[in-house]
Amino acid sequence: MAGIVVSALVLYWPYLVILALTFELLRPHFQKKKTRAFPDLKAKKVTDVYEKRKEAADDSDNEGDDGDDDEYKPPIAPDVPFVPYTAPRYSEKEMLERSQAFFEEMNQRRTIRFYSDRPVPMEVMESIIRTAGTSPSGAHTEPWTYVVVSDAKLKEDIRAIVEAEEEINYTKRMAGQWTADLKFVRTEWTKPYLTEAPYIVLLFKQVYGLMPRGRKKNHYYNEISCSISCGLFLAAVHHAGLATLTSTPMNCGPALRQLLNRPENEKLLLLLPVGYPSDDAMVPGIGRKPLDEIMVSY
Amino acid sequence: MAGIVVSALVLYWPYLVILALTFELLRPHFQKKKTRAFPDLKAKKVTDVYEKRKEAADDSDNEGDDGDDDEYKPPIAPDVPFVPYTAPRYSEKEMLERSQAFFEEMNQRRTIRFYSDRPVPMEVMESIIRTAGTSPSGAHTEPWTYVVVSDAKLKEDIRAIVEAEEEINYTKRMAGQWTADLKFVRTEWTKPYLTEAPYIVLLFKQVYGLMPRGRKKNHYYNEISCSISCGLFLAAVHHAGLATLTSTPMNCGPALRQLLNRPENEKLLLLLPVGYPSDDAMVPGIGRKPLDEIMVSY
Repeated sequence: MAGIVVSALVLYWPYLVILALTFELLRPHFQKKKTRAFPDLKAKKVTDVYEKRKEAADDSDNEGDDGDDDEYKPPIAPDVPFVPYTAPRYSEKEMLERSQAFFEEMNQRRTIRFYSDRPVPMEVMESIIRTAGTSPSGAHTEPWTYVVVSDAKLKEDIRAIVEAEEEINYTKRMAGQWTADLKFVRTEWTKPYLTEAPYIVLLFKQVYGLMPRGRKKNHYYNEISCSISCGLFLAAVHHAGLATLTSTPMNCGPALRQLLNRPENEKLLLLLPVGYPSDDAMVPGIGRKPLDEIMVSY
Repeated sequence: MAGIVVSALVLYWPYLVILALTFELLRPHFQKKKTRAFPDLKAKKVTDVYEKRKEAADDSDNEGDDGDDDEYKPPIAPDVPFVPYTAPRYSEKEMLERSQAFFEEMNQRRTIRFYSDRPVPMEVMESIIRTAGTSPSGAHTEPWTYVVVSDAKLKEDIRAIVEAEEEINYTKRMAGQWTADLKFVRTEWTKPYLTEAPYIVLLFKQVYGLMPRGRKKNHYYNEISCSISCGLFLAAVHHAGLATLTSTPMNCGPALRQLLNRPENEKLLLLLPVGYPSDDAMVPGIGRKPLDEIMVSY
């Protein structure tokens, strides 16, 4: 019996090998078929958005939970009382004037790369950041940390980190089109304004928050929320008569986070020098899109 | 000669099949080895960010190029002349007062879910959107489209789309923690304000732009730029004495884009009803984080 099996193997082993290889080769196709058996394009699209939230929610359930309060307690009590909303109301004429005047004021804002080293009172910076803090945010998580640096040595360290990365960005990493698109600002990898301006403001987005008992609290839409807050920051800086530059220093995030002792849940979103524009500050003579290119009405 | 080949094939075809199958089976491994031959962790981390840009740049090189101008022409000429920056400069005392007053004004802003149907002049909306259009943006791409809807039928259609998705969001998709986090606003999947408010503003981010000759122009940081622009929009709405609600309607993007005839390169980022708050408008009695929780200074 064993003899028959052996001689069969000697004779037919190539067929067995073919069988095994064919099976191995076709396996991925079978697996693909399996996941394709429930085609649900919509559900698939949804997954991306919700899985992350679910994961974060699951994470927080798993951590710091010692079992005596299994029920999730949201940071804002569901029965927080409602209060009347009282805000100034203007006549139609006032409203027209105010909206027009605010546009004209904001329209004078420009991104500035030349700063005076004239000091700016910290109280002004505080009001500006308080204003940024009035921004709405996903589930009122307020996921922003504004780090305000005026220390000369620290500003030099920040500049060194940014310039080292920017030199690589400009010479190696940035695609040809991008450097071409940015040529009009005539900026290079050197950033003298980072030590000239009296303040560097670093906006960190809190990807998650930490709740009592070490639970992680997911910060929904943290990047959008922080960017909206930055819009209010820009309005406040300009309204005070100061200038800034909205920059996204690439690849500097981890180094700057470490330098500034920010916790792991914070990621650098924007870096903004703040100060008086220098008396000889220049800007590229470019305009903005006209209204009919940015607004459509129905 | 032909006879020898045929009989060799008849005898040895299993070996040939094994050879072919083995080659097919090992091909992916050879390919993997090829890309792994240059391990560069840093470059890998960078890749995520830059590959997208490179792809976009490559795309535009491949499309609409009929060969007679191979050199890439940036949308803003690299030699655009510089002009002096002239903006109001205030004394330190004025600056302190202005920054404090602006904070107090913005601090009165709240997210509103109850609107009056009292009409708002379109001119006011235009000034507000012009203000939003003063936002800085990556490489001055200005990647935003504000769609302003006042048509009653269209507002109903938008509400129907949003409510249909929101019902699923609330009952099925949203993680338990998220619904719990949002309970304090006592919102449900119904959105009456979408038909009550005189306007619905839909902010679309332009993921890429189209240049003359059909080239695609990558819009760097388009989501951050549009969100910053939204911050200026919120300031302008509030400054005019109007109210809004910053919402990110999940999964409604494609349907709303189609309803509003927006092109493929635009994706819905935010949906904001705008109008007078109703006389009985209420808001949850919650505060904002104190300064020392959102600001760190060095």
